[in-house]
Amino acid sequence: MADKPKKPQKLKARLPRGLEDRGPAAIAATRQMVEKIRAVYELYGFEPVETPAMEYTDALGKFLPDQDRPNEGVFSFQDDDEQWISLRYDLTAPLARYVAENFDHLPKPYRSYRFGYVFRNEKPGPGRFRQFMQFDADTVGSASPAADAEMCMMAADTMEALGIPRGSYEVKVNNRKVLDGVRDALGIADEGRWLTVMRAVDKLDKFPVGEVRKLLGPGRWDGGEEGKGDFTKGAGLDHIQATFVLSAVGQSSEMKEDEYAPLKELQARFDQSVGVEGQKELRDIISFVGEYSDRIRIDSSVVRGLEYYTGPVYEVELKLETKDEKGRPVRFGSVGGGGRYDGLVSRFRGEPVPATGFSIGVSRLQAALTMLGKLDTRPEFGPVVVTVFDRDRVADYQKMVAELRNADIRAELYLGNPKNMGNQLKYADRRNSPCVIIQGSDEKARGEVQIKDLIEGAKAAAAIASNQEWRETRPAQFSCAEADLVAKVREVLARHDVMWG
Amino acid sequence: MADKPKKPQKLKARLPRGLEDRGPAAIAATRQMVEKIRAVYELYGFEPVETPAMEYTDALGKFLPDQDRPNEGVFSFQDDDEQWISLRYDLTAPLARYVAENFDHLPKPYRSYRFGYVFRNEKPGPGRFRQFMQFDADTVGSASPAADAEMCMMAADTMEALGIPRGSYEVKVNNRKVLDGVRDALGIADEGRWLTVMRAVDKLDKFPVGEVRKLLGPGRWDGGEEGKGDFTKGAGLDHIQATFVLSAVGQSSEMKEDEYAPLKELQARFDQSVGVEGQKELRDIISFVGEYSDRIRIDSSVVRGLEYYTGPVYEVELKLETKDEKGRPVRFGSVGGGGRYDGLVSRFRGEPVPATGFSIGVSRLQAALTMLGKLDTRPEFGPVVVTVFDRDRVADYQKMVAELRNADIRAELYLGNPKNMGNQLKYADRRNSPCVIIQGSDEKARGEVQIKDLIEGAKAAAAIASNQEWRETRPAQFSCAEADLVAKVREVLARHDVMWG
Repeated sequence: MADKPKKPQKLKARLPRGLEDRGPAAIAATRQMVEKIRAVYELYGFEPVETPAMEYTDALGKFLPDQDRPNEGVFSFQDDDEQWISLRYDLTAPLARYVAENFDHLPKPYRSYRFGYVFRNEKPGPGRFRQFMQFDADTVGSASPAADAEMCMMAADTMEALGIPRGSYEVKVNNRKVLDGVRDALGIADEGRWLTVMRAVDKLDKFPVGEVRKLLGPGRWDGGEEGKGDFTKGAGLDHIQATFVLSAVGQSSEMKEDEYAPLKELQARFDQSVGVEGQKELRDIISFVGEYSDRIRIDSSVVRGLEYYTGPVYEVELKLETKDEKGRPVRFGSVGGGGRYDGLVSRFRGEPVPATGFSIGVSRLQAALTMLGKLDTRPEFGPVVVTVFDRDRVADYQKMVAELRNADIRAELYLGNPKNMGNQLKYADRRNSPCVIIQGSDEKARGEVQIKDLIEGAKAAAAIASNQEWRETRPAQFSCAEADLVAKVREVLARHDVMWG
Repeated sequence: MADKPKKPQKLKARLPRGLEDRGPAAIAATRQMVEKIRAVYELYGFEPVETPAMEYTDALGKFLPDQDRPNEGVFSFQDDDEQWISLRYDLTAPLARYVAENFDHLPKPYRSYRFGYVFRNEKPGPGRFRQFMQFDADTVGSASPAADAEMCMMAADTMEALGIPRGSYEVKVNNRKVLDGVRDALGIADEGRWLTVMRAVDKLDKFPVGEVRKLLGPGRWDGGEEGKGDFTKGAGLDHIQATFVLSAVGQSSEMKEDEYAPLKELQARFDQSVGVEGQKELRDIISFVGEYSDRIRIDSSVVRGLEYYTGPVYEVELKLETKDEKGRPVRFGSVGGGGRYDGLVSRFRGEPVPATGFSIGVSRLQAALTMLGKLDTRPEFGPVVVTVFDRDRVADYQKMVAELRNADIRAELYLGNPKNMGNQLKYADRRNSPCVIIQGSDEKARGEVQIKDLIEGAKAAAAIASNQEWRETRPAQFSCAEADLVAKVREVLARHDVMWG
């Protein structure tokens, strides 16, 4: 038997995982958010700067959390001179490159903001995309905790500008130096082991203390008991050490008497460490934020993922909850954060350059605000549609469209197949048009046009019982002189408060 | 001799070629341009849609001009499932994928706009970047030349909205079908050879006709005579054929009598081809644009690079000229264009889906408008700067800043090293601040603050002769009660018409 000829393979229209298209409502919401954030950042004296979407890979560095293999987590390709280029995974590393490159020409401290898409080559999941938007502000060239305090205040003001009421969000501050002091006190030299401690601490907002204790100690079984579910390796701290870590991050627990002495010894070592400086900076920040102190609080369990942080770190948490489709509570958690990264610009300069910055996850926050019903997602009104009744009079209809547009009224000619007026009206409905314009040969002869008010019509349709009554009354449709077209359309728009973006 | 220890290598802060950073003036200009273009596109009834920066490589297709090797011209990488992903090189191919994927849910015709960065992995040059911004509108699902006519009208309106006066730009229309008819008449089967003909025609706005004739025929030496400079291979047409091509694209030339007959024969073959349909469509477009016909004209030499065009193509040319640094005239040429691409959505659907679109090269147009002085590039005023006089009173100063911000006045605390008041004032100057606030211990004791009006000060400085006079008069600096800070700063801002974007 001869092979049947294969049908030519049709190309499949699909996006790679973790990427999404965005429609009018989402785009309008992003625009509103971006404008509001921009206004706050500018009120704080930050000026805009923009860097391209890609950088030399070595300039970005390798600061993504939980990435063991080099280059994992970023999209990279080789330039024709063999150098590696990567898409930016955040807006901080490119800023550090920018400041280093233009150091001598910038005012110092250099205060700037920028927003744009960043890219992570990670496994996508629900709400976890490979392209998303961030909006950052950074102060480079200031070592003062006042700069960090300002970031925290700005974070609070931004949340309120976005319509999140006071009390529904919280700005939490910590200091990496405090954690470094804990590390010094424990004498943990191994980087990997320390990372395990940090990750355990980072889980305090997800797990009960007892579970975190397991992660600090021998490790933890997902399923709740030995052998059940996945096993996460622990940091191998003993009971005293784990207690010390937990109390340092604000989780005090009852102690037995024989634990006092070894804990005191650890504390004494901490008191000789950089941790004390970290605590002083935290106190300074709280004093500088003044009346904002009801919105900003020290939370010693805040770790923040990126490994370039060197001092104060902050995080904005949404405290609002909603339910998913199955009625389970959904917490949004962190929608922004940042911290001090004194080493990032220095990598290029070979001299210390202190810097601190704050980043809002615009996409993430937008998803949360959408679920909470805090974003206006009503569809906008579409354009006035001029229908095509006589196929050979397209130029006339196009002229009406031009007239409306000249009067600043959104309008378009129906550009589909004009054979069926019903289809044209259906199209106008789909576009959410306020009205359509019709001119057949009879109206043309009388020098008139028909205006069909679709908003009024929809209301009438709801009230009218029979098709016959509909045909006889033809509600919400009227004639006017050609010369009055613009004025009459304006009346219809005014009657229904039609406003365009 | 022992090797000297090597200094640790410092990372170099630099961008890959063909990419650029953008400062406040350029960002503000782009924003203004985007808002103006958006307003026109929305007036025409287009709604926004956005696709991500990357797509499956096969979905984008290979439509870049002058690219012989596959994948040349685009940035590509392999996903972890081995599939190839590329950064978008324009906004049309991703739209085609979007429409195909969402075909059943979209109103048809589907009219949408979008803007964003596109990426080309090409050799960068002056004004030629590897990341640049486009702003597109497309109508999918309409085969009517009225849809093309509308694109041309919109192109004209957009230019005027951007401040380019009528007469300083031109929208040129052509039709690929006309060129296809020429090809049919000539009987050129070979794709590469036809491409050479098109490229030659495309050079008509750069070279004299005689030079284009060489490109259509035996080829052309850069240096003007044989053996001089680089050689460009020609299409190998004979004299009659070249004359026919040139006359078809509007370049008539004197003919010898013995050329009449063979030219007539070619014309007869053209009259049997798709070229006639193309000419009819062009006439339709001109009739539909109505009173816009003073801004839109048929130019049969317009080719447009992208190979997916199937019918009408259009191009917006800036006719303004400027001089470069060496006083040579600079022409800007094409700043936008588009055309009909009936095959692009069909690749996914297996059924014909007509479509037409228009794209503005925002980055390119912005560069042109900047050179022409048509963009407002004056620096904005910076924030009011509250200086730090007493290092231990930062919290007090921060409170003043918060007060100003609460009154919607852009303000910031000086966050650099406060030891030197001169540096603080220099910083405020660099930021283009309208005024600075100073409070030393004397003022504090009296419950007062000093306001230094930097705008007035700069004027006074220009008028005052000696340092002594300056110190004695202290122009443009005055005291006020702490409680009056906001009101007095407002007065200073009002006096100088300080407005923030």
